[in-house]
Amino acid sequence: MTRTSTLTPTADNAADTTRVAVSTVIFTLRRTSGAETPTVALPLVRRTRDPHEGQWALPGGWLDASEGLDAAASRTLGETTGLAPSYLEQLYAFGAVDRSPTRVISIVYWALIRPDEVPDESVENVQWFDAASLPRLAFDHNEIVDYALWRLRNKVGYSRIAHGLLADEFTLAELREVYESILQRRLDPANFRRQVENSGTLIPTDRFRTGSHRPARLYRYNQDVELADRGPLGGRH
Amino acid sequence: MTRTSTLTPTADNAADTTRVAVSTVIFTLRRTSGAETPTVALPLVRRTRDPHEGQWALPGGWLDASEGLDAAASRTLGETTGLAPSYLEQLYAFGAVDRSPTRVISIVYWALIRPDEVPDESVENVQWFDAASLPRLAFDHNEIVDYALWRLRNKVGYSRIAHGLLADEFTLAELREVYESILQRRLDPANFRRQVENSGTLIPTDRFRTGSHRPARLYRYNQDVELADRGPLGGRH
Repeated sequence: MTRTSTLTPTADNAADTTRVAVSTVIFTLRRTSGAETPTVALPLVRRTRDPHEGQWALPGGWLDASEGLDAAASRTLGETTGLAPSYLEQLYAFGAVDRSPTRVISIVYWALIRPDEVPDESVENVQWFDAASLPRLAFDHNEIVDYALWRLRNKVGYSRIAHGLLADEFTLAELREVYESILQRRLDPANFRRQVENSGTLIPTDRFRTGSHRPARLYRYNQDVELADRGPLGGRH
Repeated sequence: MTRTSTLTPTADNAADTTRVAVSTVIFTLRRTSGAETPTVALPLVRRTRDPHEGQWALPGGWLDASEGLDAAASRTLGETTGLAPSYLEQLYAFGAVDRSPTRVISIVYWALIRPDEVPDESVENVQWFDAASLPRLAFDHNEIVDYALWRLRNKVGYSRIAHGLLADEFTLAELREVYESILQRRLDPANFRRQVENSGTLIPTDRFRTGSHRPARLYRYNQDVELADRGPLGGRH
């Protein structure tokens, strides 16, 4: 059998009609006054041009030919929102033919930030939304957020991903609250305590959170485990 | 603060210089005569044009403007190798500036296939290699394979990914052999049996594998769990 070779230009290749963009999903926790559990929130940017002028969209922009994908995600996030998380993880490449009036492949990144990392200063055309009650977004961005939420809920079960939403030291109640916000359901405090204590990922400190309740021991994550282990890609960003 | 809008063309956007390709990593297990454990193997395609003419590369090709990413991965894999796995999963988008003489973003897919799914007929310019002893490949394809192997080793620990390399019914020894091949280390048979029996992912059948050894019970995976759960993306391929 004869087959064509790889990466060989063909007569109708898409070089002149397909463009590459990057977008970023930034999750944090936000406490609405009166609510028992904080909610997952993310920043969106109001589009000032067509297509979808006036609609909300994920922060992002075009990939520049002279920059890597990670660098493009950081740059466009900063340009649109002013946010500069220490680490962005690649989430997925979205490339459905009809996702935009022209052909656009969007490489989507994501990151978790602590509530205290959200700047107080407001940025023009940027607003934070509850992930559970978004308006109709531009392009396929609702679908992208749904996928990121699904990944977040899956990941919280087997990794230290909740760490990205917590201070360095935290109580078990604070950790449980993060899980409850992400999973959108209440967890039994005793079961939760047993599970995380058995997991080996937490180290108890000799410090306590004091306040209106009885003192609660502070824990920190075991730093022997990498927060975001990208394996062989780890050193490349 | 004023920030620029998202997805708005800029003067120097990369539309005319950045191209999108797809590549695919297909893993299977191959038993070399005399070897105790099978090895992880993958098909590579010899390049017949520059750049990197004569070097081995992952199967793949250019994205066509009229097809989705998943479709492009299936099409180019079929065109180069004749392989048609039932399911390809997106692995990662590689986009380092210097990974090719021109700017190319490669969306990489991967799949596992059983040894009996590897066609006997040889395909011109296609050869199967042991993943552990690859030659120097074209572009950054060694790095891509390393990343896929790392994901495979990680995933085998918490998912049913080994299922893709096994028949519908299998003995615990056959399952352990798959794990040993992927993890590249021997596992204690008694510990392994206890772990998988406790995991709830296997269902014992009332059938046995007979032959030169004593009869061994056949198991199958619990079909209540999706093999490759992509969450909200599941219905889109």
